[in-house]
Amino acid sequence: MTDFNVAFLGAGRMGRTHLRNLAGIPGVHVRAVADADLASAQAGAALVRADRATDDIAGAITAPDVDVVLISTPTPTHAALLEQCAQAGKPVWCEKPVAATLAETERVLASVEAAGIPAMIGFMRRFDPGYAAARRAIDAGEVGTIERFRAISCDYTLPPIEYIRTSGGIFVDMSVHDFDLARFLVGEVEEVSAWGAALIDPAYTEMGDVDSAVAMLRFTNGALGVLEASRRTTWGYDIRTEVAGSRARLVIEAQQKTPLLSSHGLGYHGGHFESFPDRFEAAYRNELAYFFECLRAGEPPMPNVRDALETLRVALAATKSLREGRPVRVSEIA
Amino acid sequence: MTDFNVAFLGAGRMGRTHLRNLAGIPGVHVRAVADADLASAQAGAALVRADRATDDIAGAITAPDVDVVLISTPTPTHAALLEQCAQAGKPVWCEKPVAATLAETERVLASVEAAGIPAMIGFMRRFDPGYAAARRAIDAGEVGTIERFRAISCDYTLPPIEYIRTSGGIFVDMSVHDFDLARFLVGEVEEVSAWGAALIDPAYTEMGDVDSAVAMLRFTNGALGVLEASRRTTWGYDIRTEVAGSRARLVIEAQQKTPLLSSHGLGYHGGHFESFPDRFEAAYRNELAYFFECLRAGEPPMPNVRDALETLRVALAATKSLREGRPVRVSEIA
Amino acid sequence: MTDFNVAFLGAGRMGRTHLRNLAGIPGVHVRAVADADLASAQAGAALVRADRATDDIAGAITAPDVDVVLISTPTPTHAALLEQCAQAGKPVWCEKPVAATLAETERVLASVEAAGIPAMIGFMRRFDPGYAAARRAIDAGEVGTIERFRAISCDYTLPPIEYIRTSGGIFVDMSVHDFDLARFLVGEVEEVSAWGAALIDPAYTEMGDVDSAVAMLRFTNGALGVLEASRRTTWGYDIRTEVAGSRARLVIEAQQKTPLLSSHGLGYHGGHFESFPDRFEAAYRNELAYFFECLRAGEPPMPNVRDALETLRVALAATKSLREGRPVRVSEIA
Amino acid sequence: MTDFNVAFLGAGRMGRTHLRNLAGIPGVHVRAVADADLASAQAGAALVRADRATDDIAGAITAPDVDVVLISTPTPTHAALLEQCAQAGKPVWCEKPVAATLAETERVLASVEAAGIPAMIGFMRRFDPGYAAARRAIDAGEVGTIERFRAISCDYTLPPIEYIRTSGGIFVDMSVHDFDLARFLVGEVEEVSAWGAALIDPAYTEMGDVDSAVAMLRFTNGALGVLEASRRTTWGYDIRTEVAGSRARLVIEAQQKTPLLSSHGLGYHGGHFESFPDRFEAAYRNELAYFFECLRAGEPPMPNVRDALETLRVALAATKSLREGRPVRVSEIA
Repeated sequence: MTDFNVAFLGAGRMGRTHLRNLAGIPGVHVRAVADADLASAQAGAALVRADRATDDIAGAITAPDVDVVLISTPTPTHAALLEQCAQAGKPVWCEKPVAATLAETERVLASVEAAGIPAMIGFMRRFDPGYAAARRAIDAGEVGTIERFRAISCDYTLPPIEYIRTSGGIFVDMSVHDFDLARFLVGEVEEVSAWGAALIDPAYTEMGDVDSAVAMLRFTNGALGVLEASRRTTWGYDIRTEVAGSRARLVIEAQQKTPLLSSHGLGYHGGHFESFPDRFEAAYRNELAYFFECLRAGEPPMPNVRDALETLRVALAATKSLREGRPVRVSEIA
Repeated sequence: MTDFNVAFLGAGRMGRTHLRNLAGIPGVHVRAVADADLASAQAGAALVRADRATDDIAGAITAPDVDVVLISTPTPTHAALLEQCAQAGKPVWCEKPVAATLAETERVLASVEAAGIPAMIGFMRRFDPGYAAARRAIDAGEVGTIERFRAISCDYTLPPIEYIRTSGGIFVDMSVHDFDLARFLVGEVEEVSAWGAALIDPAYTEMGDVDSAVAMLRFTNGALGVLEASRRTTWGYDIRTEVAGSRARLVIEAQQKTPLLSSHGLGYHGGHFESFPDRFEAAYRNELAYFFECLRAGEPPMPNVRDALETLRVALAATKSLREGRPVRVSEIA
Repeated sequence: MTDFNVAFLGAGRMGRTHLRNLAGIPGVHVRAVADADLASAQAGAALVRADRATDDIAGAITAPDVDVVLISTPTPTHAALLEQCAQAGKPVWCEKPVAATLAETERVLASVEAAGIPAMIGFMRRFDPGYAAARRAIDAGEVGTIERFRAISCDYTLPPIEYIRTSGGIFVDMSVHDFDLARFLVGEVEEVSAWGAALIDPAYTEMGDVDSAVAMLRFTNGALGVLEASRRTTWGYDIRTEVAGSRARLVIEAQQKTPLLSSHGLGYHGGHFESFPDRFEAAYRNELAYFFECLRAGEPPMPNVRDALETLRVALAATKSLREGRPVRVSEIA
Repeated sequence: MTDFNVAFLGAGRMGRTHLRNLAGIPGVHVRAVADADLASAQAGAALVRADRATDDIAGAITAPDVDVVLISTPTPTHAALLEQCAQAGKPVWCEKPVAATLAETERVLASVEAAGIPAMIGFMRRFDPGYAAARRAIDAGEVGTIERFRAISCDYTLPPIEYIRTSGGIFVDMSVHDFDLARFLVGEVEEVSAWGAALIDPAYTEMGDVDSAVAMLRFTNGALGVLEASRRTTWGYDIRTEVAGSRARLVIEAQQKTPLLSSHGLGYHGGHFESFPDRFEAAYRNELAYFFECLRAGEPPMPNVRDALETLRVALAATKSLREGRPVRVSEIA
């Protein structure tokens, strides 16, 4: 078994989740945990008994004892760090998104493709047992020709309004996961038509954004789709996806957080998930394990930067459609 | 308890279902069963031990011993029969739709409103225990301000292609039930944007129709919605509706036809419904019982011809959007 | 289609439910509704526009214009009325139970068998779509050799303590339905071992009864079973049955009363059934329809008085086991 | 944060699962992995980059750089190793069971209580999110007074018949987990009555064992229970537990292995779990994390050796009841 010497960049909340997951993957040796905040780096390093903690993020990438890099730093830093990995010729896994703009994402893509490094982007939903099984069923022909796609993504808790200012808008920030699943399960998206509104908090309008949105998708292979998004529910983290084909319908829905139903008051009651850390707990573990399996097998890990680029293009098409009040072809986004 | 002397028009397959349901409603005396085919009328009459069977449909409406009329004749005859009921001043329940065109529906509306008769149209889904409970929850404020609506309607069996020619198109023929539920649960629809395709059978394209469709709805109260429709599935009659609000989300879905799960082969298996007669069996019973309760209480039964008109307007807006490739305001349909 | 001229005996609450169901069965003409209380008889007669209402129950059985009898009178009158039907040579359906004692049930059995009349007893659960489908799956060999049986029956509302005095005990009064299902789905019961306690109301102990019970069953074919019963829950009418075999497991459970789930407060909520009238609404309709189909086809309707006798024997064995603190063979009950 | 220096004993299939889970727990440093088979020890050590691998199991316990021991060796070795941990005064977690006999388990209990060491036994189901939530609901009073308990445990795959010879019988080998849950959720068991049979393979009878069993439980607090066990199903690993009380009913059941439903052929289909590694994946992780949290907090981890002893007593009472054909009080087992 090949061993990997890893630099882990970004030891915030999700970073520490990834570090704990990393500790359970055989053959992974975390040489360095780097974070702009040294105390965070030290806390993260302690989780995996890493060789060292540092606030020199760039130095961790180029360190001679490091041969793989994992990036979980703040979003605006992803693109530059990916490019540094490319320059260093080191395989990299990076939390999504690559970048907020198409141009920056394309630049990163050019960089990693030129370097020829494996570069995986963390659209973790693909590694949820439900979505992975859906993909296997589709590959096995069980669904037949896909005719319709449905996606819904709603967060439980309304984010601070300040977060919205730089979020890129509801489609880029939230629905991007659904667009990735659309491409993963159905194929490339050709056209999007979107509507939205500030139904929860009028401040969204002032930000030039919406808190609730719907969209229609038309896929290159002819399939049609619908999508919903909302910034808050009262019932939990609402993530559901459907694929309907000529042979079967798949519904990916994790209705119940724990295997417990309580019955009283002439009814029964089950608990929903609260957010991505609980709903996608297994997916986060699986995606890192898969990344290292790919490295070991010499196979390119997916989704890669090109996937992130194409998915972003769909999200930007939806955003443009929302703003311009007309259907937008994905090919317009260039 | 007031007794009702009823003429029942149209003793085809659904007509006989209605007749059997009618037999279970106390105080209803079926005087005449009328059908253009006398043998059908006789078979229907036998089901409820009606006083007489006849092929004189018009005569059954005006018969002096008849004070309430129920119409389950072929669709193209509804409008004229409703007008005859209006002229006769007799309360009437009529299977949906009132008519295929807005003009004809408006003419019927004018007629029944002038006559002042109760005239209920058979959008039976409202009387399904699930939809009725959803409406009660909304009325009780349990859902809060409604933000999103979702509807899906898929038939199990592809209809004969000849049926399509005169069906009015997928939105008028199938989604009209969803538009009625949208109005019932959320409120008036302001704008529709629709896409469709012939994904199942290219003959739909030749007919100027589609077999698969999606749409977005914008309601007058600001809520947004999505809708899906398909002419056939492999899994059963797929009718699902959701209402998401500031306080709760309602999902109306009858997943399992019988209360039996069979487990084998590392999995469990439940049976879906096949079509409207099994899925909406209770709704059909409830709607007729409700109609007579309204008559007894002197209250106007709902949905009425105006509802049918407004719902048709939404369906026509969706059809127009599909054809013209642009969002269509419901107010354009006049 | 043969027509049937029916006398309906007993127009109480359940009687009126049966009358309404009867009205929906083609070819059934209710000649007389009889009840010791003439006003009840009249109210019942009005539901089906019967020819007459009467308080002469015996006379209704022997009336020359009556050829089928349905009995829904108070339990203690069943045996004598069944015998009168036998004497009159008229097919009969009777609400369960036949009688409280084995001797009386045997006397009725001898009487109806001597007369050769069809005599069906109203264990309606067999006609629930779930239980009927379970039986079909077993008959089709889908379950294989049955190895285990599970039954649970819990009422939602504690009955008045006075009712308990003459109820025959929890196994005869409540679990008798489960014993009937055990025989229907698995086969004859050979031995029972039961425990019970007054966990809800100590008054049950004074009555010589229990309000909570469990039991083990051993079937003649070797299968094993468990059973639970309780006089009240806080969550609804809890009726669940399982059959596990060498090929499959069947679970018959109607979890959700209406096809509506409401999600809020980080969870989802569905409504349970309240009692037999809502849970077994379809079963009640189906059993009467089946009775008349059998008469029409000249086939003996099931379950019959012999079934009621064998089922009672199991219930009495369970009662004896509970009292004597030892396993009791069903053959001991004679 | 305190760090722990751990010796891990037994690197077989489950041992490696535990090792991978251990790797994800911060502050745990595996000094030694010991296994009678050195190659296994080395493979296990590689999973967590342990300091050393060894086939000297006893030496790993007493090693000066080790302060906590985890035991996942073959069952017959547990008792002696637990005693060695007690002699070494080192906290220990040990896979269940402690020992096959009451006497041996009592000896271990005496030993660890004399030493005063924390000694936790791996009844992992308590740490499944469903069972843990059930216990919290009970502690919060949401269930009220517990009246009934139900447990079912069925394996998917029939074990090799040779395994049965030394398994201790179905109640000691399989239902022991249900007895532990009974004690965890309801309280001490006072009396058991059990029946069983060889319905799957007659070889079980030759072994003096059964492959299918049912039992009734009477708890010290008055509650009643039923239990089922089977050595194989065709549908998966069937583990279900219910607690019914004066206020609510809890059902702990993980019906669906992955959040995917596939609909086709007029029905829907979900996948069951296959065995304990997939069903209780989270439970295995949680129990080790809890063990170290207890050590860190200075609180005694549960369940301990006394729990194992009392649970074994119930299993032995069930076994005795099965053999002697009579109810057996748990106090008889001494």
